Amino acid sequence: MRVAVIGLGKAGLPLASIIADNGFEVTGVDTDERKCEDINSGKNPIPEEPGLDELIKMHGGKNLIATARYEDAAHCTVFIIIVPLFVDELYNPDFSILEAAIRSVGPLLKKGDLVVLETTVPPMTTEALAKEWLEEESKLKLGEFYLAHSPERIMTGYSISRLKEFPKVIGGVDTESGLKAYEMYKKIIPNLHLVSDARTAEYIKIIEGCYRDVNIALANELLKIADVLGVDFYEARANANHDYCQIHLPSTGVGGHCIPLYPWFLIKEMEKREKFRYTRLLRTAREQNDEMVEYWAEKIVLECLRIDKPLNELKICIEGITFRAGVKELHHSRNLALANLLREKGLNVFVHDELFRRAELEKMGLRWIEPDEADLVFNCFELKMRRSV
Amino acid sequence: MRVAVIGLGKAGLPLASIIADNGFEVTGVDTDERKCEDINSGKNPIPEEPGLDELIKMHGGKNLIATARYEDAAHCTVFIIIVPLFVDELYNPDFSILEAAIRSVGPLLKKGDLVVLETTVPPMTTEALAKEWLEEESKLKLGEFYLAHSPERIMTGYSISRLKEFPKVIGGVDTESGLKAYEMYKKIIPNLHLVSDARTAEYIKIIEGCYRDVNIALANELLKIADVLGVDFYEARANANHDYCQIHLPSTGVGGHCIPLYPWFLIKEMEKREKFRYTRLLRTAREQNDEMVEYWAEKIVLECLRIDKPLNELKICIEGITFRAGVKELHHSRNLALANLLREKGLNVFVHDELFRRAELEKMGLRWIEPDEADLVFNCFELKMRRSV
Repeated sequence: MRVAVIGLGKAGLPLASIIADNGFEVTGVDTDERKCEDINSGKNPIPEEPGLDELIKMHGGKNLIATARYEDAAHCTVFIIIVPLFVDELYNPDFSILEAAIRSVGPLLKKGDLVVLETTVPPMTTEALAKEWLEEESKLKLGEFYLAHSPERIMTGYSISRLKEFPKVIGGVDTESGLKAYEMYKKIIPNLHLVSDARTAEYIKIIEGCYRDVNIALANELLKIADVLGVDFYEARANANHDYCQIHLPSTGVGGHCIPLYPWFLIKEMEKREKFRYTRLLRTAREQNDEMVEYWAEKIVLECLRIDKPLNELKICIEGITFRAGVKELHHSRNLALANLLREKGLNVFVHDELFRRAELEKMGLRWIEPDEADLVFNCFELKMRRSV
Repeated sequence: MRVAVIGLGKAGLPLASIIADNGFEVTGVDTDERKCEDINSGKNPIPEEPGLDELIKMHGGKNLIATARYEDAAHCTVFIIIVPLFVDELYNPDFSILEAAIRSVGPLLKKGDLVVLETTVPPMTTEALAKEWLEEESKLKLGEFYLAHSPERIMTGYSISRLKEFPKVIGGVDTESGLKAYEMYKKIIPNLHLVSDARTAEYIKIIEGCYRDVNIALANELLKIADVLGVDFYEARANANHDYCQIHLPSTGVGGHCIPLYPWFLIKEMEKREKFRYTRLLRTAREQNDEMVEYWAEKIVLECLRIDKPLNELKICIEGITFRAGVKELHHSRNLALANLLREKGLNVFVHDELFRRAELEKMGLRWIEPDEADLVFNCFELKMRRSV
């Protein structure tokens, strides 16, 4: 089994490494040539991922060959596509990267080959779009090749262990594809579950994200209420939670490439079908989470007013600007949105983040400060304000 | 320690029995004289509660004396109030039963006595209303008596085990009340947790219900979407759920005296304070759950249209009319709401429920049918339709 992994990002590279570690020849394709060189020389481009260093060192340039050229994967029989999917400003999925990757795989397909889409996608993407693009480019028909969806379930910081232990689902666009894909993937993923079809696999991954999003929105809503009532939300949460009650942690909202996008996949799909009332909870949760920055901004402003200094002289530090603690990634970062919102209000806003050097932040147009030098520090992960006096 | 338990319903009677079983003298007060007689002769009025038969047989009329007269509890030093609280048609709490119970306890209070409210109540009820009513009726001031809240966490069918094992919280309206109440309750409840105050204890119980309500609404919303997409929701749910994902089961909505009320406690409290945007998710979830009957009604109508018989001759059986399987209780039953909705639409609706005899149902104005005799049967708990042909 020779496997091509298209996309060597935070999801793709751990997967490619695990497949190589299982003794298979892996060709990793990524547009970033420098990253490919690093991998081939045994250097891990995602050092924050525990366990990945060793795997890249062991297999990079050997069992795992990284390349920017699709044709280098022509000898493979299994093609795994694991590239990013974004949404546009109206939250519609933007398939351009995915389409380019799938269309580039098409010409490499030979009879009997298997394509597995790992990117989390809106329902029906695999059976409709991916199939169409592959058939067009390969001049083969489904049945001559196999097509399945197995959504990545990794989480930066836990990717290797997730691949080794966590349950993973796979579903084919037809019965044969499902069986073929299950058989192949079972050699790599120990905790693998075959589901009815690709659409079910797509839906499973999406609703997992929806569960998280709605429950974070609930925690955020309950925190606001607790604040109004003068109740310590964290004390209450600790005492409310038990086997049948799993209230999540509140936040500045939900950022990153994953969870905040998935509810939109369902919302937009239902809108297309004029089922507007079928996603009211998902939509409300989405809005609730995205609006949390307004809540925190107001709290910060009120705290500023209690400091005996003119507002325009007062230095506010937003501490922690990544979308999640410990991950150097800013996509849909609500903490950054909070800093921007405060700046729009005319406040004197600075940022600080252990994962970014001063120069990096200033290059992004942000003003850097040492928390000790600010009058007020808001820690975005602890949701705590402190005055630095 | 002599304990009065005010209210010998589904929550009060198991609690009174457990206290008696711990070796304390319990006076149970309930307006239902016949129920009191039953208890005093060792007969359990809630036979569906596992373990309660034995306790009532052992302690009824001995350690546990039931009475309809408050003055029979005058010798007690601990008063536990565990009577129902309903909401009116606008979802505002109706305190009439609770106020009557608390005002009746007032005159019995002596210096040093402890009052514990177990009824789930809107935030601040204990510290504001209960305190006021007790002070007015007892002519004592808080400090001369102690007042705390420890929300009941039972569930019909599991009440005894919940009291013996499940975590329970208690909070005082002042520090002394909290400590005193904790000390007393610890003799009865092994898994007891003292929290900051009564308000926190109230809030804890309410958010537990909110978590359930929102997550059931999410399951209901995801089920509708799965139906549109042609995905088997149950298969998807089984594969989506793991340690960090706990998608609930869909339903015809949420009924009973508890969960559907608690979100309203917070919604109404926030409305009073003009914090309208702080409960949007709770409100949407509530609406989503209450509207599920419309979804099922439409599905039933569509299924009827597929049967080769004029609609007005077609017999529909709603199977299972209680608010929850196995509990003979109809309060806010969504299944009953579904039957009524179909009747309003002009359909030929009948009901069937293993917990109710035909005569009982007909007395309520419902038409009874054997499922086998209906053309279409909708099972409200399995959410399954079957044709009886």
